[in-house]
Amino acid sequence: MEGKMKVAVMEGIGKMGFTERDIPAPKADEVLVKLDYVGICGSDLHYYETGRIGDYIVEPPFVLGHEPGGVVVEVGADVKHLKVGDRVALEPGKTCGHCEFCREGKYNLCPDVIFFATPPVDGVFQEYVAHEADLCFKLPENVSTLEGALIEPLAVGFHAAQQGGAHAGQTAVVTGSGCIGLVSMMALKAMGVSKVYVVDIMEKRLEKAMELGATGVINGKEQNVVEEVRRLTGGKGCDLVIETAGTEITTRQAIEFTKKGATIVLVGYSKSGELTLPISLALDKELTFKTVFRYRHIYPMAIEAVAEGKVNLKGIVTDVFDLDDVQKGMDYSINNKAEIVKGVIKINKEAE
Amino acid sequence: MEGKMKVAVMEGIGKMGFTERDIPAPKADEVLVKLDYVGICGSDLHYYETGRIGDYIVEPPFVLGHEPGGVVVEVGADVKHLKVGDRVALEPGKTCGHCEFCREGKYNLCPDVIFFATPPVDGVFQEYVAHEADLCFKLPENVSTLEGALIEPLAVGFHAAQQGGAHAGQTAVVTGSGCIGLVSMMALKAMGVSKVYVVDIMEKRLEKAMELGATGVINGKEQNVVEEVRRLTGGKGCDLVIETAGTEITTRQAIEFTKKGATIVLVGYSKSGELTLPISLALDKELTFKTVFRYRHIYPMAIEAVAEGKVNLKGIVTDVFDLDDVQKGMDYSINNKAEIVKGVIKINKEAE
Amino acid sequence: MEGKMKVAVMEGIGKMGFTERDIPAPKADEVLVKLDYVGICGSDLHYYETGRIGDYIVEPPFVLGHEPGGVVVEVGADVKHLKVGDRVALEPGKTCGHCEFCREGKYNLCPDVIFFATPPVDGVFQEYVAHEADLCFKLPENVSTLEGALIEPLAVGFHAAQQGGAHAGQTAVVTGSGCIGLVSMMALKAMGVSKVYVVDIMEKRLEKAMELGATGVINGKEQNVVEEVRRLTGGKGCDLVIETAGTEITTRQAIEFTKKGATIVLVGYSKSGELTLPISLALDKELTFKTVFRYRHIYPMAIEAVAEGKVNLKGIVTDVFDLDDVQKGMDYSINNKAEIVKGVIKINKEAE
Amino acid sequence: MEGKMKVAVMEGIGKMGFTERDIPAPKADEVLVKLDYVGICGSDLHYYETGRIGDYIVEPPFVLGHEPGGVVVEVGADVKHLKVGDRVALEPGKTCGHCEFCREGKYNLCPDVIFFATPPVDGVFQEYVAHEADLCFKLPENVSTLEGALIEPLAVGFHAAQQGGAHAGQTAVVTGSGCIGLVSMMALKAMGVSKVYVVDIMEKRLEKAMELGATGVINGKEQNVVEEVRRLTGGKGCDLVIETAGTEITTRQAIEFTKKGATIVLVGYSKSGELTLPISLALDKELTFKTVFRYRHIYPMAIEAVAEGKVNLKGIVTDVFDLDDVQKGMDYSINNKAEIVKGVIKINKEAE
Repeated sequence: MEGKMKVAVMEGIGKMGFTERDIPAPKADEVLVKLDYVGICGSDLHYYETGRIGDYIVEPPFVLGHEPGGVVVEVGADVKHLKVGDRVALEPGKTCGHCEFCREGKYNLCPDVIFFATPPVDGVFQEYVAHEADLCFKLPENVSTLEGALIEPLAVGFHAAQQGGAHAGQTAVVTGSGCIGLVSMMALKAMGVSKVYVVDIMEKRLEKAMELGATGVINGKEQNVVEEVRRLTGGKGCDLVIETAGTEITTRQAIEFTKKGATIVLVGYSKSGELTLPISLALDKELTFKTVFRYRHIYPMAIEAVAEGKVNLKGIVTDVFDLDDVQKGMDYSINNKAEIVKGVIKINKEAE
Repeated sequence: MEGKMKVAVMEGIGKMGFTERDIPAPKADEVLVKLDYVGICGSDLHYYETGRIGDYIVEPPFVLGHEPGGVVVEVGADVKHLKVGDRVALEPGKTCGHCEFCREGKYNLCPDVIFFATPPVDGVFQEYVAHEADLCFKLPENVSTLEGALIEPLAVGFHAAQQGGAHAGQTAVVTGSGCIGLVSMMALKAMGVSKVYVVDIMEKRLEKAMELGATGVINGKEQNVVEEVRRLTGGKGCDLVIETAGTEITTRQAIEFTKKGATIVLVGYSKSGELTLPISLALDKELTFKTVFRYRHIYPMAIEAVAEGKVNLKGIVTDVFDLDDVQKGMDYSINNKAEIVKGVIKINKEAE
Repeated sequence: MEGKMKVAVMEGIGKMGFTERDIPAPKADEVLVKLDYVGICGSDLHYYETGRIGDYIVEPPFVLGHEPGGVVVEVGADVKHLKVGDRVALEPGKTCGHCEFCREGKYNLCPDVIFFATPPVDGVFQEYVAHEADLCFKLPENVSTLEGALIEPLAVGFHAAQQGGAHAGQTAVVTGSGCIGLVSMMALKAMGVSKVYVVDIMEKRLEKAMELGATGVINGKEQNVVEEVRRLTGGKGCDLVIETAGTEITTRQAIEFTKKGATIVLVGYSKSGELTLPISLALDKELTFKTVFRYRHIYPMAIEAVAEGKVNLKGIVTDVFDLDDVQKGMDYSINNKAEIVKGVIKINKEAE
Repeated sequence: MEGKMKVAVMEGIGKMGFTERDIPAPKADEVLVKLDYVGICGSDLHYYETGRIGDYIVEPPFVLGHEPGGVVVEVGADVKHLKVGDRVALEPGKTCGHCEFCREGKYNLCPDVIFFATPPVDGVFQEYVAHEADLCFKLPENVSTLEGALIEPLAVGFHAAQQGGAHAGQTAVVTGSGCIGLVSMMALKAMGVSKVYVVDIMEKRLEKAMELGATGVINGKEQNVVEEVRRLTGGKGCDLVIETAGTEITTRQAIEFTKKGATIVLVGYSKSGELTLPISLALDKELTFKTVFRYRHIYPMAIEAVAEGKVNLKGIVTDVFDLDDVQKGMDYSINNKAEIVKGVIKINKEAE
């Protein structure tokens, strides 16, 4: 498809603008996707606010956004499983396919991954993208491209639940009730865990958790979290924790309120990158700590969970911004963290 | 509790009768349970029809029945977690606790297990039983003692699903739509498997499977099962099979319609004890075969699944017989296999 | 490297000949390897004797041989980890890298694999081969190219042991003491299994097993294998079996002489492709059956085991034939199965 | 066996004495063991120096010592697998057998465990002990009772290696070269890990590590540990770490020098009970942290490894003290930590 497309670019810290670029041509193993929605991730906001995450430094103009959903409009010569008109969720990381990690199936650890919106690789706050067809997952009839965009954060939740060995019969606790906390809670439920409690200190977020299916919630400002988890588990402690808050206090609480032999999955990044933890207590309880870097092999499962009605992905969206309003969307998201669960950029005005 | 109780005994092949015995006194670590319902298992029918299963030979008078649910009426001195009035499901096998298998947590393989209705150990088609309190699992408010009785077969289904490593995102097939096939299907769904197809040759059973939540059914008399599974899975084959029919044809089909790398869980016993199988094909596909002997560590999970509404256990019951009609119940069950999914003996006429 | 090379071709059933072909030019991601040794596998002999294995049918002229070791003589532009002069073992299967199986790390199940000497893909009974550099594993100083050639069958043994979950503290039995039985035994020992017994009916093979480190051997012609395994395990049965004989008798014995909860790894193909097995007994013991198709992720581990002196790979070689004598080598191998453990074609006369 | 026995008691901090007690009579499921050797554990020294570990507080007179080896001199009525004269290693923890953890095979987490030398339960610096026969493991001919005593610390090493999923083909690093570091290194090697490097800051301990089979050692005082591990692994980092030093510096280094996806097993307790760790880096690498509390199901495997010559357990013993010299032994052990790897109390002067 020849032509130009609108691209939103980060022009500097706290400054978005627009540019026009050529609509890319898909290679033989790629498809061209007209984007409907792209989610705003915490990492997008962090780059926008500070210009960097660790060693990844934004060199403007830079395109943010790595949670895309859209419609296939052109198909590369070698692509067989997709056709024009298919609605798709795009997995944002293209991996090398032959390193040790790729070969062993842990492709999320590929050192040569090319991942949307991770400097210097541009993201997809733009009208079109050409992407490896194997990373474009067809959405069933009853899953919208808005939901398709949100498969990305949901994949983090599923990967966390899988890393934790989640299964029916367990009692789990999710600490942190932001976007990742909520999708983790929903992933746990979709994987058969009946009892999932959510901890946060913002009442609004806890209400959202209840609305989306949490078994119960604990407000850490008002309740003694450790005692409350013990009470809810008949004194035993819980089997599994997914820690998404990235704070020392929640991680320490997790070590205290788990059952012996339990697993804690660390998902949230802390501000300083460091945590001081009661490791001797963890040894006494023979706890396992798993960590999560993105996800692998999750998209089909996550899409199915949405299609089956097990995960209410639309329910996490609190704010939708048009592409033209991207600056407003970014600013609003930063200034209203307590109000917003998940913001999304609507790229295509005609999308449902 | 002093007094006498009514006991139904198998007096010979095809012949039930009644006797009166002392109500047993619970030991310090036991509770006395007044039974409400006891399920009729295929093994009960087999002993009743033929007098034996393998090396286990009935010496009349013998008490059948090992799927009990009831109410605690007396509590041993050392028992802390149960009290009079608690409604319970009884796990029927008491294990030694110190053999290699017990110590490693595989207590279902304990060579010294004492299991209800496995000669020479009597079963529980009777009004009361004293049983190890650790094997009596309290039922929540919303789970009846009828469902409590059926936790036993449900446990087989959950164990099969667990042995197979069932998890969200898979497509599973259950071959055989009798009681164990149906509970396996429901266990798979409770463990997060969204797509579960059931195969049988009796239309009535397949209707029951649909009624209880199967994603779809295949009638092996009318359809090419292998082709149909391939069609339903987009040509790929399924990830997991739970084989409950115990026939060569279904097991061979399973080897054919699974995806490479898949797992087949063998649950059903065949008549001759032997099966002729295309093992070279299994090697080409690198299949895994798991087998199932009873269950372990399943009761709490199974009870929770019923309480959460994930498993419709009442739905499998097609016939309830009073204790007084036990002979009729056994005979009817044998003569109407196609009609009956699950028969239950109602021990206590006043039970709900 | 321009020039011609000698290639041994199967011209028909039981008939080898020679031809000359261009030395291939390595692509950017390939290396050109001058071959020193290529092992003769049972599948080579089977194609040679019968012209087919299952649906794989030889169309002459066809090149046999898929167990190569040699020296890098030319390096593709993109290859970084190898240089001219490196001695290498070649993993014979090139996979697609992006199918479901490849992505999940189970690349041995890739449906689009290109595997040496599997019709219509030619093998490597020839002087040179250009091969994907990622599939060429550098040999340490103390591992010869003869051993490099034999890494291929050793990989089958390691994969079988891994599939079986082999670990220190177990007692294992290997049924069949041919090449694959012997490498399985050695792989088990390298993985920490101290007690490995080998069963066969040919005394010479059992002597070889003892020579290579078996804990003990059982001659199935002279001893009651089931009783003997029970005796050796204090009546308990063994934890793990690797079945390489491909016969019904050994597989049935395995089901009988294992401990409850044990694992049997099926490696050997039976003649008819089918086995009649006492599956009900397997259920009573809750056995697991794993199967093996080739191997994955094994070469580095297998090479290390040889380098560390844990596996005596040279010890399995009983016969070496020059490339010029390939017909004699094939015929001799077929006619002296009882004498030969492993035959090898020496491609390069000057190889050590 | 009637009579009196000598018992060494801790009479106060830093003060040992002796008393005489009745030789205990074994219960039906117990054996009476005449002790030959009892190892001195770091926890014994800690109680001796400070009177407590966490909430466990010594109330004198208290008997230390929980690493016993000896000879059966009397056998309880129900004991079948042991007889008078059998030399045994004693697993020191008696568990309840019916709690959730015991039933699931994780008996080391039993909350009601009775463990030698853990207040208020006395240990075994004494001539005889009556102990549950199932916890007394018969030693083969070629394993001495001195080695039997040391099976206890070796079990910690094996459990750590198992928790870490140790297997052939990995490169492992053990941080800390004290008794537990050394047995961990030897356990890793016995489980098939060929490359095991040991890190410490005391040259004498590193020499001991080399003597006992380490692949190489790194002196943290003289070398940059992170760079050295990277160098030794071709830049990749190691697959598995067993951290026994209990210090922040070694744990931080472990997080840095591991490969992506690696596992770190935390065994050593830190002084304060807390560690400040770069958890964000651990997330980026998707590391797993396992922890270890004592061990489970290890004694048979550990005894076999010693019998097979895979673990040189005698080699860790640097000092043997007679029971009469127990005070000297304790004091010397505390004052010469750099010199002593493992001290042992010889209870029976006539023991080999």
